[in-house]
Order: sequence, then C-alpha cells, then structure tokens
Amino acid sequence: MIALGGSTVDRSKWKRKSIVTLALTVLTSSQAILIVWSKRAGKYEYSVTTANFLVEALKCALSFAALTRIWRNEGVTEDNRPKLKALTNVCMPGGGVGASSDTAIILLNFVDLDRLSTSWDEVSVYPIPAALYLIKNLLQYYIFAYVDAPGYQILKNFNIISTGVLYRIILKKKLSEIQWAAFILLCAGCTTAQLNSNSDRVLQTPFEGWLMAIIMALLSGFAGVYTEAIIKKRPSRNINVQNFWLYVFGMVFNAMAILVQDFDAVMNKGFFHGYSLITVLMILNHALSGLAVSMVMKYADNIVKVYSTSVAMLLTAVVSVFLFGFHLSLAFFLGSTVVSISVYLHSIGKLQR
Amino acid sequence: MIALGGSTVDRSKWKRKSIVTLALTVLTSSQAILIVWSKRAGKYEYSVTTANFLVEALKCALSFAALTRIWRNEGVTEDNRPKLKALTNVCMPGGGVGASSDTAIILLNFVDLDRLSTSWDEVSVYPIPAALYLIKNLLQYYIFAYVDAPGYQILKNFNIISTGVLYRIILKKKLSEIQWAAFILLCAGCTTAQLNSNSDRVLQTPFEGWLMAIIMALLSGFAGVYTEAIIKKRPSRNINVQNFWLYVFGMVFNAMAILVQDFDAVMNKGFFHGYSLITVLMILNHALSGLAVSMVMKYADNIVKVYSTSVAMLLTAVVSVFLFGFHLSLAFFLGSTVVSISVYLHSIGKLQR
Repeated sequence: MIALGGSTVDRSKWKRKSIVTLALTVLTSSQAILIVWSKRAGKYEYSVTTANFLVEALKCALSFAALTRIWRNEGVTEDNRPKLKALTNVCMPGGGVGASSDTAIILLNFVDLDRLSTSWDEVSVYPIPAALYLIKNLLQYYIFAYVDAPGYQILKNFNIISTGVLYRIILKKKLSEIQWAAFILLCAGCTTAQLNSNSDRVLQTPFEGWLMAIIMALLSGFAGVYTEAIIKKRPSRNINVQNFWLYVFGMVFNAMAILVQDFDAVMNKGFFHGYSLITVLMILNHALSGLAVSMVMKYADNIVKVYSTSVAMLLTAVVSVFLFGFHLSLAFFLGSTVVSISVYLHSIGKLQR
Repeated sequence: MIALGGSTVDRSKWKRKSIVTLALTVLTSSQAILIVWSKRAGKYEYSVTTANFLVEALKCALSFAALTRIWRNEGVTEDNRPKLKALTNVCMPGGGVGASSDTAIILLNFVDLDRLSTSWDEVSVYPIPAALYLIKNLLQYYIFAYVDAPGYQILKNFNIISTGVLYRIILKKKLSEIQWAAFILLCAGCTTAQLNSNSDRVLQTPFEGWLMAIIMALLSGFAGVYTEAIIKKRPSRNINVQNFWLYVFGMVFNAMAILVQDFDAVMNKGFFHGYSLITVLMILNHALSGLAVSMVMKYADNIVKVYSTSVAMLLTAVVSVFLFGFHLSLAFFLGSTVVSISVYLHSIGKLQR
C-alpha cells in the first residue's frame, strides 16, 4: 500500500513537472513568434521598460489573485501567508480584488517592509534575482558596441553552459558525465541551429565583447540558479507566495529602469505610448512564461528550464515556416538533430546514475 | 601468471590498434592536404583511373614484399601462404623480388585461379569489395547531374550512418544506445563542420539525387563492412595474404575502369600522361592509407575507421589554416565540438556495456 501510494505521488509529481515544462515550452515558442510578428509590424514604438514593468506587475497580480483564492478555499496557513500581517488582514475579507488595486496594496506594504523584522530573513533574498537581471539588461546596451544583434543571439548560448556550471556549484547538484556531454551538445546544437551566412562575423568579436558576453551569461545563469535556490529552500511554501515576493522586487527594479532609461519618453508621450494589440499580447505572454519559469524552478530545475527553452527555440522555427514562410536551413536540421540527441542523452544519463 | 600474460596481450593488442588508428588518421589528413595542394597547382591532368590502378598495384606489391620477408624469417605456414602453390614455388627461392615483377607473377597466376579449386572458397569473396567500390565510383559520375561537388561532400556523410547500420546487421556486433547516439552525432558534427554559405543548396537536391546518395552510401558502407567480415573471418590468417588478394582484385577492377573510361587517353597520350610529383605523392599516400584501412579492419573495426577518418577531416582543416591560410568558420568549431563529444561518448558507451 505504501509503495503504491509512493508511486502515485511520484506519478503525480512527474505529471506536474511535465505540465509546467510543456507550458513553458509552448509559451516560450509563442513568445518568439510574437516578437517576429511585432518586428514585421514595424519597429518597437513603445518604451520597453514600461512593458517590462507591466509584465512584473501582471505576474505579481496573478500570483496574488491565486493566493486569495487559496486563502478562501484552504484558509491562511504558515506556508501560504506572505508573512506580512498587515497585508493579509487588509486583503482577506475583500477577496477577488482587481489586479491594479492589489498592486497598489503590495507597493504600499513594501514600503513598510523593514518594520516586519521576523519575515525579513526570508524576504531579504528575493530582490537579488531581480537586481541581477537589471544589471544584465543594462550591460546589454553596452555589448552592442562590440557585437551586432545576430552575433549577440549566438553569444547568448553561453547561458546554457553558465547555467549548468552554476547549477553544479551553487545548488551542489551533480550531473552525470553523460549529462554534461549532453549539456555541451545542447549549447553547440542551439548555436548550430541559429547559424546563417553572417554568423562567422561573431568570431571577429573583440576581447571586451567576449568578456561581456561571458559576464552576462554568468549573471543570467546566477539569477536563474539563485531563484531556484530561493524557491526550493522551503519546499512546502506555496509557490504563489514566493512568486509574489519575486515579482514585487521585479516591479521595483523595473520601475527604477523606467526612471533611468525612459523617464522623458514616459513624461512627454505617456506611459502607454505606442502600445498596440501585439504589445498587449506580448506582455500577457511574457507574464505567463515568467510564471511557468517559476513553476519549473519549483517542480523541476534550471536544467529542465534550459532544455525547455532550447526546444522552444526549435519549435518556433518550425512554426515560423508555416506562419511566415521561413525557410529552414541545413544548419537548422543539424542543430535540431544535435539538440534531440542531447535531450535523449540527458534522460539516459539520469537513469544510469 | 596467466592473468598477467593476458593483460600484456591486451595491452599489446590495444597498442597495435592505437598505432594503426593513428596511422590511418595521419595518412587520411595528409591525403586531403595533398588533394588541396594538387587542386591549387591546377586541374587534374592525369587519368584518375590509371592512378587508382597504380594505387592498387602498389598496395599489392607492398603486401607481397611483406609476405616474402615473413616467409624468409618465419617460413611458409598455413596462415601466411596465399594458397597458390604455383605462386609460392616460383617466388620463394627468389626472395626480395621487385614490385613490378611480383605484380606480373601475380597477374599471371590470377589467370590460373579457377584451376586451384581448393582455395577458391576463400578467394571467391575477395572480388566483392572491389566490385562494390567500382559500382560506387561509376555512380559517382551520374550523381553530379543532381548535386554539385560541395553538396556531394555533404551527402557523403551518409556513409557514417550506413556503415553503422550495416556493421550492426552484417557483422551482428552490437553498439550500445549511447554509441548509437554518438554515431548520429558524428554524422551531424562532420556535416556541421563542412557547412558554408552555399551548403543550403543541397536541400534542393531532387529525389533522384538523395536516392543515389543513399545507394552510394550503402554500397560504400557494405564494401567496408564486407571487407572487415572477410579479414576477420580467419583471425590467425596473415593480414598480408588477405591484403594481397583484396588488391589483386582491386587491380583487376581498376584495369577494367581504365578500359571503360580512359582507354583513348591512355592510348593517345600514354599511361603516365600528366603525372607530376604531387600525383606520385598522392598515389603513395593513397596506397599507405589503404594499407592502414586494412590494418584497422583487422585489428580494430569499421567504427574505429569511421571515427579515425572523421577526426582526420577536422585535423586537415586545422593544418590547412597554417599551410594554406584557410579560415576556420564558427560552423567548424561547433562541428568539431560535436565530433569530440561523439568520440568521448563512444568510449564511455563501450565501458558501460
């Protein structure tokens, strides 16, 4: 009976892991397709920082809406309470509050955070991923002095390796030899799939460009692995509480980015200038993808996340053939083959541990 | 004592296997470099069929010279006798006969072959690889109606897969799952390393072109695997006897090719028209590579041969950077990474069986 129960739990865990991984793959694919669509429609005319802020706000609101639902159904417990008494007291009776008013309350309470000394230990780590992403995004503006955009897309594949290395070092989780080989193949395969006639230009990247690309990969990898560490630290903690705090700080750091980069544009043309249907869809998609990433961190890990987004990249290209009449290159077929073998080896490598 | 003896035998076998593999790799690399050099020097002005014939003749002569040496040192045994009494009787007393007179004697005795009914069983299989290669080489002229030369270079990587599949089917040797994955990676990696801006043209190859490429890959793979089957059938048999018979039939089939393709050119301009120092070096190199292939078949297998020649292709490119000022592409680095991982996985896969 116990063995049967255990296997049911395992199967349900496996099912949940598969669903969140599939969701991330589908959302990431459609994300890339929306980007292609928006590029075809013309240049970005909105402020990217405002869109990023809205993505964080939407994720925060959705996490909070999920929380209020759970509170109503299951009551407030140690695992689903954001540890801010004032906040739960205010929101609990209301129930089903709209996203924008939630956001206001959250921001209000955030200001009072340093008064809640008991929960500071848990909350203090949440700003770190958001801060790392902000630094990475700021660096992104400088790397284009050394590399062009397609070159940057290629260098971004360093993320795969840096995530694997930091996953090993920080989370102290071992990958088998075959899984390491699979991980290098994933990086090589993704890069191969992206090759085009201009790709060789990336080899002329000056030393500063390589250095920045590696630093950015490390920042991005560290942010991902650190997020997993935060989320996994207390497995029983409700994911929506964890998300809520992650996105509160995401909003704060993105608000800072608006002030630094787009203050004039927002002041002169308004916060929502240049928004279109595609912009709204992209914000919605990014928010859902972000939530899926969190779920993958909670129920799977960074390695699954990297595989999921890599496979999504290949799916995007295949879907683009039908949607936009793209042609698939020989390099794409070869890269896809290598990525497929990598996925296979990763699963084989796990079984043999 | 027996265990110690066994391990010494194992080590000596491993050493011999490594030496022949290394020799094949180095010879194949220098072969490709000679081809580049000869192309730079100008068009092929000699008849390729005459050069192929001389390669077979040289290999045959070298095998026979090695045999006479062994006969003098170790005496004639059941394992080093070509089973042609007339031949051994004629040659044994002479000792150290020159290559050209050997060839004449061999050809002379070949005519009498059907009279030697006792040895026909063993000898009857030797013409098959040579015949298969001849058919493949004839098809090569027709495939260029559908694919250009760089495209054909890419399609030739099907050889890797066909060799693996036929090795499994004909020699009934199992590869582990990881080794299969490694083999597909070897094919993808080699193709990736050869990518250039015109490679995508190969995707426009008509159905007939794909079909011919696959048939040629199967012929070439079958010839290789069949040669291994012949050579391995009687492990105690001296490799020089086996080579002797393989190359006798190689000469016969290449003589037929001269008659079919270059009869007029040879008659009007002479057998050696257009020969240069490079031509002579290429013939020498092809002969030595051919002998190395036989040695690899005897002491290792077709899989090792495929890995050896693939790594040779990568070595060639690196050496060409220094010799001819070639530039290495990003695709080359990615392909080399995939091939390296493939070699690693092949060795790992073997250990885990």
